[in-house]
Amino acid sequence: MSNLMYSMSVPVFVRMLGNLSAILDKGAAYAEAKKIEPAVLLNARLYPDMFPLTLQVRIAGDYAKGAAARLTGNEPPKYEDSETTFAELKARIARTLEYVQSHAPESFQGSDERDIELKIRGEMRRFKGAHYLAHIVLPNFYFHVTTAYGILRHNGVELGKADFVNPL
Amino acid sequence: MSNLMYSMSVPVFVRMLGNLSAILDKGAAYAEAKKIEPAVLLNARLYPDMFPLTLQVRIAGDYAKGAAARLTGNEPPKYEDSETTFAELKARIARTLEYVQSHAPESFQGSDERDIELKIRGEMRRFKGAHYLAHIVLPNFYFHVTTAYGILRHNGVELGKADFVNPL
Repeated sequence: MSNLMYSMSVPVFVRMLGNLSAILDKGAAYAEAKKIEPAVLLNARLYPDMFPLTLQVRIAGDYAKGAAARLTGNEPPKYEDSETTFAELKARIARTLEYVQSHAPESFQGSDERDIELKIRGEMRRFKGAHYLAHIVLPNFYFHVTTAYGILRHNGVELGKADFVNPL
Repeated sequence: MSNLMYSMSVPVFVRMLGNLSAILDKGAAYAEAKKIEPAVLLNARLYPDMFPLTLQVRIAGDYAKGAAARLTGNEPPKYEDSETTFAELKARIARTLEYVQSHAPESFQGSDERDIELKIRGEMRRFKGAHYLAHIVLPNFYFHVTTAYGILRHNGVELGKADFVNPL
């Protein structure tokens, strides 16, 4: 029996967060080559009231760890949100990946029907696992990974679609 | 039996493309209110060698119609790529939504194991349906919807995350 709740979540997070980590490497290398203070890129935004790069990276990972936890009946671990350098953001991604991969594929069986409760804008809401993954986790996860990419791209870091989406 | 290949694809496209259509409305209204030539927004990019808004919208829809077709064993319809106005882009989204919704949920049953062939950068590749949806369709679909949002946001259109991701 196929285990789509697993294959639509964990391997997706592993691939995309791995790519995001490599994208951050390119951002850090660009800052060094151009003698740009890394904080300039880390605090860059596409618009003043959007989140800066640092938060885009943190939040993307948080959707991944939240999903791995909740779909398997666990409480997501809390991280401190104290990262201020490329290296610290990469360490957070690595820690997130370790957590996400610590859940056996079998523990996702049947999670499409699992009741997931979460607080959204101060209100407790309940969703089935399939809805939570398809309509909350993945859109938000991809929103923040894409926006992180867009921020660096907009600031001149040489990235291409392949950095976002490879390997196929 | 749950039908995750359907629920992870068609309803996702319907919701996100509907939101994208409403986001374009806000872009068009903003252009009018600020007396900005709509083409300025339609041709806006986050970086000179990235695609402009018009292409982001077209390509997002193409991943949706491609998925609805291929996962159900059909050939994706070809559209002309001639849109140059907000109204024409919205009409293309509407046409895409009609096509995507024309496939019965039952026709997605078992599509996780279906062989999907597609040409990527000139090379014929074969993927299982689940891999195609999780690792090709969804990342690219979300990339282009998010980038369309980001382009308008970067140009001052008053949008918030809820425009992207609601209703929950």
